[in-house]
Amino acid sequence: IGAMVYSMATGTPTKLEAPSIAERDKLAKHENGITENSPMRLRMERFIKEQQKQIVKELEEIDGKKFQIDTWTRESGGGGISSVLQDGNVFEKAGVNISVVYGTLPRPAIEKMRVNHKAIDPDVTSLDFFATGLSMVLHPHNPMAPTVHLNYRYFETENPDGTVNAWWFGGGTDLTPCYLFDEDAIHFHKTIKDACDKHDKSYYPRFKKWCDKYFYNKHRNECRGVGGIFFDDLDEHEKGQEDAFSFIQTALKAFLPSYIPIITKRKDMPFTEQEKLWQQLRRGRYVEFNLVHDRGTSFGLNTPNARVESILMSLPLTAGWRYMHEPEKGSREQRLVDVLREPREWV
Amino acid sequence: IGAMVYSMATGTPTKLEAPSIAERDKLAKHENGITENSPMRLRMERFIKEQQKQIVKELEEIDGKKFQIDTWTRESGGGGISSVLQDGNVFEKAGVNISVVYGTLPRPAIEKMRVNHKAIDPDVTSLDFFATGLSMVLHPHNPMAPTVHLNYRYFETENPDGTVNAWWFGGGTDLTPCYLFDEDAIHFHKTIKDACDKHDKSYYPRFKKWCDKYFYNKHRNECRGVGGIFFDDLDEHEKGQEDAFSFIQTALKAFLPSYIPIITKRKDMPFTEQEKLWQQLRRGRYVEFNLVHDRGTSFGLNTPNARVESILMSLPLTAGWRYMHEPEKGSREQRLVDVLREPREWV
Repeated sequence: IGAMVYSMATGTPTKLEAPSIAERDKLAKHENGITENSPMRLRMERFIKEQQKQIVKELEEIDGKKFQIDTWTRESGGGGISSVLQDGNVFEKAGVNISVVYGTLPRPAIEKMRVNHKAIDPDVTSLDFFATGLSMVLHPHNPMAPTVHLNYRYFETENPDGTVNAWWFGGGTDLTPCYLFDEDAIHFHKTIKDACDKHDKSYYPRFKKWCDKYFYNKHRNECRGVGGIFFDDLDEHEKGQEDAFSFIQTALKAFLPSYIPIITKRKDMPFTEQEKLWQQLRRGRYVEFNLVHDRGTSFGLNTPNARVESILMSLPLTAGWRYMHEPEKGSREQRLVDVLREPREWV
Repeated sequence: IGAMVYSMATGTPTKLEAPSIAERDKLAKHENGITENSPMRLRMERFIKEQQKQIVKELEEIDGKKFQIDTWTRESGGGGISSVLQDGNVFEKAGVNISVVYGTLPRPAIEKMRVNHKAIDPDVTSLDFFATGLSMVLHPHNPMAPTVHLNYRYFETENPDGTVNAWWFGGGTDLTPCYLFDEDAIHFHKTIKDACDKHDKSYYPRFKKWCDKYFYNKHRNECRGVGGIFFDDLDEHEKGQEDAFSFIQTALKAFLPSYIPIITKRKDMPFTEQEKLWQQLRRGRYVEFNLVHDRGTSFGLNTPNARVESILMSLPLTAGWRYMHEPEKGSREQRLVDVLREPREWV
């Protein structure tokens, strides 16, 4: 999803007489720091940076190895921090990335966005925007331990005078096991549901359904995993900005409690060579979803000058494809596939 | 590419009073067999079936293991034979598939095709078509032995009275090494060039360039491999049907001499664990090309009821992705990447 944001920033930034938003934000951070009165841009950026640090810290404790931290900047303003742990003790590959983008949307992107955000003027030829988000994918070694994905993002378009034009939040998190432990799926969903319920009782049921629909490998007629939540365009038609931000904070903070108990329980479970092979095939399906269906990934990859290594950190260290592989009837593998074909209500 | 053909056959076949082309072809094969006077459809089908048998036979001799042969039929006429060898002694995964499709093109596909084939009436709402082709991908175990891909296909649209409306051939073959042996690339290109030159001296230079352009992982700024040839829309503006078919035959028959000497030389070479890991990363790039950029694959996967296992036989048994992996300066791995970034003239 983060990739979608980069990819839109194709045009060279418009050079204005007045200082750009990126320049003004930089100055504001220097002079006053970030307070509750700062623009949402800066507050969201600060929040996801804090969360990135905390998540990386906790994952390092579980794994015993350190993340590689790469900080990068964008010429037109913004940049990112990619934290990746590879060949860990627990994680085959774990990426926790944040990015901050100041850019200009070209016309086709504006038209697409106006469908959901009527505040956007349909007649402008280009539009300054800001986007920031945290993206995470964790692939554990142990086939009993599920892969998890999370992304929370904030998007804003700007008026010519530098004020905010439209804004919205998006995101979600979903769990992809190779071997299904019902208690894990229930715990994951329950933790997310509790977080949602604190803000709006309608969130979980709507975003759970949206998740099942989005993370769907259509060509395989199966979901990527056992779901979670997914949503986009959470804007003023839904909630005030403070309420929306407050929900995003609760949701992102729910990540560690949603996943840590699961990985702790599964990371050292015994497994067979056959089970490792099944994991490889499930990893293959993960690759298929990300490269064929994920809007952000494919859009990003088709865009010049994207940071490909950050986009593709979501791919597993290893994956496999076997021709005409069918799980045995009544096997645990078959049970997983059955559930992926017909998403369950877990809570 | 074969996938593109399946994917177009989305509509239910129109039920006509008169026997369908599929029915007539079936009858003709029964009554008279296939002769030089038979429609090109039947001659191409017979030719690729013969070639499939011969290629499978020779690959089985090299590998020592047998292919799994799956014959399938399509409700609307036609079908295919998928031959796949998995976990062989030489090949990790090898697929040699043929397919025959009688179908109906929906309007958007007709409009796309008319760009290159003016014989197609722009005003029809649907159009019967026939497509047949042979598709092959071979992934050897040994990282010193290159992956090879080949596809030759024949396409035809039909007038309402059952006569041929437009026809064209397409195809090509390309080599994807993990470790570059110049002599292999030279031998592969030379064999193809000789085949091309027998028919038209302009073919090889044009189709070689087209291949470098098509099998290009744009988001990585590198070619998939060291190329070969690729072409589409070889029709009456280029050559008569007999001449075109004659070229296709020469080109397909050139496959075994182009690849067998290479695999024979490389299949038992010693290699290190590190070299095997590099192969896995190159396999990852192969997956990226096929899932992100290959028009046929992605189109096919987004189409309901395609035979996914036949389309995805092109994916390797195993693949890998490492974050921020860079080959060592001056290494053999770096040399491959350099060549992929700047395609060479091999003959």
